Amino acid sequence: MGNIVVAIDIGGTGVKFGLVDRTGKILTTSKVKTAEYHEPEKLAADIFTWADAEAKKINASITGVGIGTPNGNYFKGTIDFAPNLPWKGVIPLKKLFEKKFGVHVALTNDAKAAALGELYFGNAKGMKDFLFITLGTGLGSGIVVNGAIVYGYDSLAGEVGHVIMMPNGRQCPCGRKGCLEQYVSAPGIVKTYYEVLRTKNLDEFRTSLGGMIDSEVLYKKAESGDATALEAFEKTGEMLGLALSNSVCYTRPEKIFLFGGLAQAGDLIFKPTIKSFEENLLPIYKNKIPILPSGLHESEAAILGSASLIWNELN
Amino acid sequence: MGNIVVAIDIGGTGVKFGLVDRTGKILTTSKVKTAEYHEPEKLAADIFTWADAEAKKINASITGVGIGTPNGNYFKGTIDFAPNLPWKGVIPLKKLFEKKFGVHVALTNDAKAAALGELYFGNAKGMKDFLFITLGTGLGSGIVVNGAIVYGYDSLAGEVGHVIMMPNGRQCPCGRKGCLEQYVSAPGIVKTYYEVLRTKNLDEFRTSLGGMIDSEVLYKKAESGDATALEAFEKTGEMLGLALSNSVCYTRPEKIFLFGGLAQAGDLIFKPTIKSFEENLLPIYKNKIPILPSGLHESEAAILGSASLIWNELN
Repeated sequence: MGNIVVAIDIGGTGVKFGLVDRTGKILTTSKVKTAEYHEPEKLAADIFTWADAEAKKINASITGVGIGTPNGNYFKGTIDFAPNLPWKGVIPLKKLFEKKFGVHVALTNDAKAAALGELYFGNAKGMKDFLFITLGTGLGSGIVVNGAIVYGYDSLAGEVGHVIMMPNGRQCPCGRKGCLEQYVSAPGIVKTYYEVLRTKNLDEFRTSLGGMIDSEVLYKKAESGDATALEAFEKTGEMLGLALSNSVCYTRPEKIFLFGGLAQAGDLIFKPTIKSFEENLLPIYKNKIPILPSGLHESEAAILGSASLIWNELN
Repeated sequence: MGNIVVAIDIGGTGVKFGLVDRTGKILTTSKVKTAEYHEPEKLAADIFTWADAEAKKINASITGVGIGTPNGNYFKGTIDFAPNLPWKGVIPLKKLFEKKFGVHVALTNDAKAAALGELYFGNAKGMKDFLFITLGTGLGSGIVVNGAIVYGYDSLAGEVGHVIMMPNGRQCPCGRKGCLEQYVSAPGIVKTYYEVLRTKNLDEFRTSLGGMIDSEVLYKKAESGDATALEAFEKTGEMLGLALSNSVCYTRPEKIFLFGGLAQAGDLIFKPTIKSFEENLLPIYKNKIPILPSGLHESEAAILGSASLIWNELN
């Protein structure tokens, strides 16, 4: 076995990590609970112990560590004020891991890492310009221009989920109103469902408030033909299509990839999104930009993203 | 004298051209009327005759030709379906000029050329990430990421003027409704003025329709304290500020530069724009991104932009 990298995906609940080779093959993985690590140094130490032992088993050499994390700052190598992680303030995670591992470490936010995963191991192989959107608890984005992630001046570019779509719209935890991710995300589509239900069937709306559904249940309702659930998907797709058509005016991607739970609803979300996208698109872009599912498997994307980040640097 | 470039700015009314050295000094200029050139080959021939003679006078050598033009496609070197030029369809202008001049030719759209002018000879010197906005008959944009213009997949990136700000808003000649440039541009602010006037003073509105004012007159009205004109500037700035705050979510520029007639209104447009920008900005970007006037002189920007385009390639 030759050179491999350690790929780490830090989330609010768990930290997943694995060894990945240059072809994107995940050789072995493990995970720990985020809450059990009050000190990030302890996390670095435990992952090192694990990775070192695993690498020896397969006679491989660790050449780098790639980390995808919420609020990861690529330029500084830090996690900055992540509300859902146990470490407060600015955490110099890159430095901590470099000290422990003695190899090159790279860190970025999770959506940007996943976009690189798409570029190296997914459906965007060889592409120079594309847009990658993750639809989960929020709406994350990784913008690729000229073959590289757009970091902007301070590494904080690519916050498409916080484009204001509805001035004075739904309250966003960011402090503003009407951000795209308040409409297009797992919680967003559920809110839309209840908005539609209230106008369609006030009695059912009142009864339903006792046990609010999540986006999984909403998907099943829509699949079984529930008109209200279907309308929620329609409206969500309309908003996403408009947002993506505006996005094209900035960086004109070759293709757009949708990833994450909501994207797995297939036609239910893709059809209304593509319809609205094409309707709202500037004529010079019409019928030229496919919106496609990500080529990454849900369970592997984060690890492959973190692996791509470091392979990208080592290349 | 050493190497110089021929810089050409093609517009609907006139074609301006000049010889520019590596430091951005415009050595000599001339112009012709666009309508007199039914054949683009004739334009190339006449500019060559002029440039060759001028270069000889100063003992300089022409090393390239840079062209800024409406609907210019950088990748193909063509002008594609420009509604305001006498040449219909797709015109291989780069090829025509290369044939005539025998040197390297580069062509792009006017806003992208002007953004490069800002990078090489204006206020964006040495910057890697900035946003350049031209406010004229329309709203043009040049986005710089990682030190290079964002062309996207087909060279047609950077159409910020066509981001839809108001679904079902004002009709845009592009066929859609509510595009940013229908509000934020010389004609856009005049429309806003009349909208405000109609709600404030219907009699004056009716009388005024006999001789509609232009943005210059509107500027003078605002300067002399006319409340309606001032409100038109306020509203225009509000819309521009919101649009720019959304733009930041894509490419996180270090600075934003405003160029063109409307930008020359100074505080009248900058103050409400910056106020709305900061109010609408995602907290991570607040108070970090200056919105500034372009460093290019109105009369020289187009020529310097075209010159930058070709110096950029020759570098």
